[in-house]
Amino acid sequence: MQRSGLLIIISSPSGAGKSTLARRLMEWDPTLRFSVSATTRPPRPGEVEGQHYYFMDRAAFDEMVSQNQMLEHAEVFGNCYGSPRGPVELAMAEGRDTLFDVDWQGGQQIRASALGPHVVSIFILPPSLPELERRLRSRNQDSDEVIARRMLKSRDEISHWAEYDYVLVNDDIEATEADLRAILTAERLRRDRRPALGGFVRKLMEDAA
Amino acid sequence: MQRSGLLIIISSPSGAGKSTLARRLMEWDPTLRFSVSATTRPPRPGEVEGQHYYFMDRAAFDEMVSQNQMLEHAEVFGNCYGSPRGPVELAMAEGRDTLFDVDWQGGQQIRASALGPHVVSIFILPPSLPELERRLRSRNQDSDEVIARRMLKSRDEISHWAEYDYVLVNDDIEATEADLRAILTAERLRRDRRPALGGFVRKLMEDAA
Repeated sequence: MQRSGLLIIISSPSGAGKSTLARRLMEWDPTLRFSVSATTRPPRPGEVEGQHYYFMDRAAFDEMVSQNQMLEHAEVFGNCYGSPRGPVELAMAEGRDTLFDVDWQGGQQIRASALGPHVVSIFILPPSLPELERRLRSRNQDSDEVIARRMLKSRDEISHWAEYDYVLVNDDIEATEADLRAILTAERLRRDRRPALGGFVRKLMEDAA
Repeated sequence: MQRSGLLIIISSPSGAGKSTLARRLMEWDPTLRFSVSATTRPPRPGEVEGQHYYFMDRAAFDEMVSQNQMLEHAEVFGNCYGSPRGPVELAMAEGRDTLFDVDWQGGQQIRASALGPHVVSIFILPPSLPELERRLRSRNQDSDEVIARRMLKSRDEISHWAEYDYVLVNDDIEATEADLRAILTAERLRRDRRPALGGFVRKLMEDAA
């Protein structure tokens, strides 16, 4: 039965497992679309246009914002980041859901947009902050200073947990993935997500009259 | 993490698979409590007090209603039926969910009660009405007249589908059972169902301060 696509927002502090969970969800359901961000920051080695980001200059970015073509956008350390609206609306029309990996500010903007009623928002908490710091350090890619800054950002991110529809504590990645699947399955079954149900019931009643 | 128990209302026309699905759900999760109705109708052979119904006389039933001890109640063909509130509140306090097999009138009354915010309501549709009639006939226990009356009642029941949070079309009992499990799993993860989350996050932040 045709349904309208959802906007699945997953937020969490860095290191809580969000990227792994998003990847697993998309392996589970290949119809899920990941929202690739647009950015004015230059590509890093290995980053692929349209896969990691849509790279553009400031003028193009500002033009998209002024045309209301960004669902959310922010400036961080002088670079702009945003979620283009077009691909999301296309996916919705096809009955496909879009996955957003955004922080609380992005989440707030998307919820406040015209597509807000189609949003399902999920916050992933780490089991503890020392565990979060351990996970960040085990990546072996950041200096103490960067890790300290990330931990401050994490506390800021966590402080917005109560703005989300669902909150998961990622003690165990398998269990958290199962919970995410259940949330997606259930949200797709909600009556108010399925405009085609009315027609189905009308036909059900007429066929037997 | 301690949570408050939910009131899971499942309604459907007779023959759509509701009883089988309820039984399977309770095998899947033995903490689920089934809400046993109170009734003034006399027990039939084989019916067990406290398992099929709580049997009581009219005076006792009316007393419970007047004490606001029935979450919902109705009179059908001269007999009263109702869902006692006490066991539901006890289960809720223990973080256990209660399953209600009630019709749309019972569903409306429970949603309108003080426990309404804890309700999750699910409507099960048959794939077609001829299929529903076939299922009723295959039981081989009812006269044509009774089946015709049940089909009329079914149409009345189906007409209330749009009052429910979730609507499932029971094409395939295994798939519908999986959907019901996903709904229960997801609803238990909703932030607003888990008053203990605030304390968890507070502790998370303090432990690392």
